[in-house]
Amino acid sequence: MGATIRIGIAGYGNLGRGVQAAVAKNPDMELVGVYTRRDPAALSLPGGAPAFHMDQLPGHTEDIDVLVLCGGSKSDLPEQGPALAALFNTVDSFDTHARIPEHFAAVDAPAAAAGKTALISAGWDPGMFSINRVYGEALLPDGETYTFWGRGLSQGHSDAIRRVPGVAGGVQYTIPSTQAIAQVRAGERPSLETRQKHVRECFVVLEDGADAAAVRESIVTMEHYFDAYDTTVNFIDAATLAAEHSSMPHGGFVFRSGNTSDEHAQVIEYSLTLQSNPEFTSSVLVAYARAVHRMNQAGQVGAKTVFDVAPGLLSPKSAEQLRAELL
Amino acid sequence: MGATIRIGIAGYGNLGRGVQAAVAKNPDMELVGVYTRRDPAALSLPGGAPAFHMDQLPGHTEDIDVLVLCGGSKSDLPEQGPALAALFNTVDSFDTHARIPEHFAAVDAPAAAAGKTALISAGWDPGMFSINRVYGEALLPDGETYTFWGRGLSQGHSDAIRRVPGVAGGVQYTIPSTQAIAQVRAGERPSLETRQKHVRECFVVLEDGADAAAVRESIVTMEHYFDAYDTTVNFIDAATLAAEHSSMPHGGFVFRSGNTSDEHAQVIEYSLTLQSNPEFTSSVLVAYARAVHRMNQAGQVGAKTVFDVAPGLLSPKSAEQLRAELL
Repeated sequence: MGATIRIGIAGYGNLGRGVQAAVAKNPDMELVGVYTRRDPAALSLPGGAPAFHMDQLPGHTEDIDVLVLCGGSKSDLPEQGPALAALFNTVDSFDTHARIPEHFAAVDAPAAAAGKTALISAGWDPGMFSINRVYGEALLPDGETYTFWGRGLSQGHSDAIRRVPGVAGGVQYTIPSTQAIAQVRAGERPSLETRQKHVRECFVVLEDGADAAAVRESIVTMEHYFDAYDTTVNFIDAATLAAEHSSMPHGGFVFRSGNTSDEHAQVIEYSLTLQSNPEFTSSVLVAYARAVHRMNQAGQVGAKTVFDVAPGLLSPKSAEQLRAELL
Repeated sequence: MGATIRIGIAGYGNLGRGVQAAVAKNPDMELVGVYTRRDPAALSLPGGAPAFHMDQLPGHTEDIDVLVLCGGSKSDLPEQGPALAALFNTVDSFDTHARIPEHFAAVDAPAAAAGKTALISAGWDPGMFSINRVYGEALLPDGETYTFWGRGLSQGHSDAIRRVPGVAGGVQYTIPSTQAIAQVRAGERPSLETRQKHVRECFVVLEDGADAAAVRESIVTMEHYFDAYDTTVNFIDAATLAAEHSSMPHGGFVFRSGNTSDEHAQVIEYSLTLQSNPEFTSSVLVAYARAVHRMNQAGQVGAKTVFDVAPGLLSPKSAEQLRAELL
């Protein structure tokens, strides 16, 4: 083991706090700075890590081995990803699946030009689930892939609920169908409609005087978000929302079910049961930061994804150790 | 997609037949030859693939992109691995865990000297299970890894039973403890003794006049194989053995259970349910043959393991396609 890997965090929300916790679990890493758009003096950081303003990043290129970008996919990462990949090795969790090719291209050019390595779209989906989709398809080419999400709190759907007139607060859980999972696990390879794969459960606090029936109707018929699903709406009070629905559990399943011959079927299952979605995502980002540091040292520059990273690069152990202990 | 990848098979037992079936499922590959130590004219090969004697391999170096070694780990692979890695890119399923470092070194030198790429110890354990142990440890460094095998037919333990005096035939199934798995899945992180993780179930056909009680005692007390386990011995007749115990199911589970903070625990689970152990192992070997071909073309020579192979290299799809479709 040489010097520690110096990690910087850009953005200090749930994900940034998770990265801080994850770095503390990895003795070969140290947190050298948290960068925020807020007033850095106002951040209270556990463990005494120094806080800086985001504008100070260009002056700190020599201090950071890998910068972990902890902003959102909607507006932060499309802008910060390309700009910061010209200055630092980076890891991000860009998760707008349809725009990944565009984000890859936008980050690749500045990273390659600057001799930096920029890993995009790490986390669990995209991320570990994606890896399992690729392994599954490659190992069982004659088969079907199934991804189920949940039981978990969906940030996007919770935001959508909170925009409904009459709603004071609320959360939405995505719940995979127990029956659909049992079918897939048994190797049946069913064709599943959207409605058969997941149900959606909402916990909603009404504004004073709001019409519960109208709110329910607005939610369950909302295009793209709820209209294709069976949705349950439960009305609760604000105290219950705060007490019982403030953690962020999530998880899900990736299955590959296929035949290796006419006689023999095989089922591969990968699943996650997460008490904290952002903390797990952050742990993935930090493991990939280790790989990015090594890939950059090996001259592998430009944009990368989890598909480009050999598993051994994620581990602090040497290749010899991994072969002796874990193969 | 350029030319097809030309695959050779060295050794035509269960694994070799599985490789033949797997190549048929991958349109970017073709089987150019099966090499055997028996009389090649006596092999009846489905699909009309040509059969050759193993001695003809040195004359066929220009015809084969990747040679898949389908011999056993005890005596075949330690000899064939180094010899054939000097002539071909190779993939093997060497599965004697304790001797992997030695096998790696023995294969690395001739492969590197000849500019060939030799991937050792592919399959599911070692192989996909090993990959999941590495991912799990890297993503959740503060945690525990659990591997369970089965329900599955164990070749080594079945062989051990058949060597007991008075036994005419038999098979052994390794069965993971349902209770232990439930504990681990629930995030409990128990300390499990060998006896608590798996039980062993034997189906035995006695020779005429053999003493059932003595046979049972010899089995359940057998050192290394059975003495540390709770073992059940069922006596059956030869017809039942042939009818009900001739397939080779297997599978198992790799769990990583860990904490990302004091507050939040996370559980990762990977499992396989295999109707045919050798066919699945063969499918893994064939997917890694694709990766080996690409790594050799990229100048990555010498011995490799699954830890050195980026997931995307296993897929026939381009990196662009994978990012657009599976990330």
